[in-house]
Amino acid sequence: MTNAEGLRGQIAGQTALCTVGKTGSGLTYRGFDIADLAAHARFEEVAFLLLKGYLPNKGELSAFKARLRANRGLPAALRTVLELIPASAHPMDVLRTGCSLLGNLETEQRFGEQQEAAERLLSLLPAIICYWYRYAHDGVRIDTALDDDSLGGHFLHMLRGETPPELDVKVMNCSLVLYAEHEFNASTFAGRVCASTLTDLHSAVTAAIGTLRGPLHGGANEAAMAMIEQWSSPDEAEAALLGMLARKEKVMGFGHAVYTVKDPRNALIKPWARKLSEAAGDRVLYPISERVEAVMWREKKLFANADFYHASAYHFMGIPTKLFTPIFVLSRVTGWTAHIMEQRAHNRIIRPNADYVGPAPQPWVPIEKR
Amino acid sequence: MTNAEGLRGQIAGQTALCTVGKTGSGLTYRGFDIADLAAHARFEEVAFLLLKGYLPNKGELSAFKARLRANRGLPAALRTVLELIPASAHPMDVLRTGCSLLGNLETEQRFGEQQEAAERLLSLLPAIICYWYRYAHDGVRIDTALDDDSLGGHFLHMLRGETPPELDVKVMNCSLVLYAEHEFNASTFAGRVCASTLTDLHSAVTAAIGTLRGPLHGGANEAAMAMIEQWSSPDEAEAALLGMLARKEKVMGFGHAVYTVKDPRNALIKPWARKLSEAAGDRVLYPISERVEAVMWREKKLFANADFYHASAYHFMGIPTKLFTPIFVLSRVTGWTAHIMEQRAHNRIIRPNADYVGPAPQPWVPIEKR
Repeated sequence: MTNAEGLRGQIAGQTALCTVGKTGSGLTYRGFDIADLAAHARFEEVAFLLLKGYLPNKGELSAFKARLRANRGLPAALRTVLELIPASAHPMDVLRTGCSLLGNLETEQRFGEQQEAAERLLSLLPAIICYWYRYAHDGVRIDTALDDDSLGGHFLHMLRGETPPELDVKVMNCSLVLYAEHEFNASTFAGRVCASTLTDLHSAVTAAIGTLRGPLHGGANEAAMAMIEQWSSPDEAEAALLGMLARKEKVMGFGHAVYTVKDPRNALIKPWARKLSEAAGDRVLYPISERVEAVMWREKKLFANADFYHASAYHFMGIPTKLFTPIFVLSRVTGWTAHIMEQRAHNRIIRPNADYVGPAPQPWVPIEKR
Repeated sequence: MTNAEGLRGQIAGQTALCTVGKTGSGLTYRGFDIADLAAHARFEEVAFLLLKGYLPNKGELSAFKARLRANRGLPAALRTVLELIPASAHPMDVLRTGCSLLGNLETEQRFGEQQEAAERLLSLLPAIICYWYRYAHDGVRIDTALDDDSLGGHFLHMLRGETPPELDVKVMNCSLVLYAEHEFNASTFAGRVCASTLTDLHSAVTAAIGTLRGPLHGGANEAAMAMIEQWSSPDEAEAALLGMLARKEKVMGFGHAVYTVKDPRNALIKPWARKLSEAAGDRVLYPISERVEAVMWREKKLFANADFYHASAYHFMGIPTKLFTPIFVLSRVTGWTAHIMEQRAHNRIIRPNADYVGPAPQPWVPIEKR
């Protein structure tokens, strides 16, 4: 494998949206530190920041949220299609297909419609995943046009069928802020390659969803959940984990391709996981998580990344494990669409070269002689 | 714009599938020259060559074609979804959505299923586009499980509702051979970026379709058609074309991002366009095409690329212009899926870096102070 593989360390273009790991650990969205955003910002403010380029004032935020609320109704044809998708489908396939179908029903006809199309997707992706989930699993046709104030609250309301408690809404808000944007990660880069042919917004987001679906990208929080929920005490977890490490098995939720010192998002989601654990009277899952984090650091000097405490946080909120990666989509669609707009504004088609390692020129052989 | 933009001239990975423009003009699939393939090969042999790595013998080809024929039936849920998509939709959005939905109904559960999934897509994409087209435009529910010998013949049969003449089947065969593979073009590269997270085949092909949709990539033959069909004589065409050149308007179907001397596919499709013109008793479109080609060379030293004579060839076969780019998909899905398999076999996640050009770190500002 050459250095070229994976384009690791190669510059593939410019962005004004994000820095990742500038000092080994940092994360900023348009210059704002992720710690400030997680502490102070509503997710809707972060979405506005990414899509429009600046933090909204009160009037702008209020108007933006009103537009997002007004965009929550699913077209009838999309509902019909979601009802055709079986409960056994991969939830990321549902989101990818819902996004793609929306491109048929509400096609972005020209780039002047891109902000509108991005806002519509931001509102509708939670409705797509929840409508499908509730119909396929509970046989219920939910109304998605609810008036919840926040996107996270709207998601939980649709999923549970009742208004969620304030603590859960706050945790969802923090989680959505943390996952919103991350520079040229594979899904965002796939979206930019797609956008570089000047195709429509739905095509590029559809490409990004399908890319995030892969186990090397999204899905780490699901894998972390599957791991920690199999243990019943911190001591059992430690023994089992040491066995995994001895067998050189991959432990999901630790380390990062770009961060070398720590993932700054871990310290921001972890306190929320603890609060949810306390509220739930949990004596198992959070202590196990802390032990796993400590053992991974002690044994391997590997730090917990954004995904690790997201696993228990989502679990305490009653979110089915297979919807963890879809939540990533509901947030990251802001970064994706911001990158698509940025690509369009300074576009050159992304068309690299390949290093040819195949057969030399060879003469045609008629089928009778093969 | 820096050199990094568009990754032009940068190596993004290895391939054994294809060389493009090695001497300024050449094109080979796994070492076989495109001129040999266009002269001698059935498209199904080329598909086999790309997917399996070698030219099939008689028994292998026969078995491969039998599998492709057996794969032509559309699942009921997919038919229902296609019937929900309006005639006004972009045909590439229909293909993208059909491919994505298929991923829900027939999910690739592990990479061991990749050959099967690729063959299914190869058979079903023509059925998806024709079923939608005939239902949305003619109100007809066609049977796609027909027993045509070739993929091109199957496509024309479904589109027209009758078995196509031998000449048309031969032209479709040549066209599908020419479009099958082209190294790290943008749609293929998008598919590889997507595949590099180890996601499923349908996600990666869906990403590629949405990328090919863009006017900088697919669609050049449609634009060429729109241009030449507005003129009624070679003299009128020349006068209008000279006006376009004087106004520095882009003329689609000429020049190429990688080829510098000629596009080797032009000389291979052009004689078929002429034969179809003669068979149709045409005295307008083909002479206009020849004049446009001559003027572009005389005035700009720009050569016709693969797309230019495809426009008139498809037109003479009665194919609606908006289905030109979808035909590209029906062929290129072989190259895409071969690249996806190659990416999987030697994978590293494709995650480049970005050159940050955004704001410096800035302090949080409460909303009251904005």
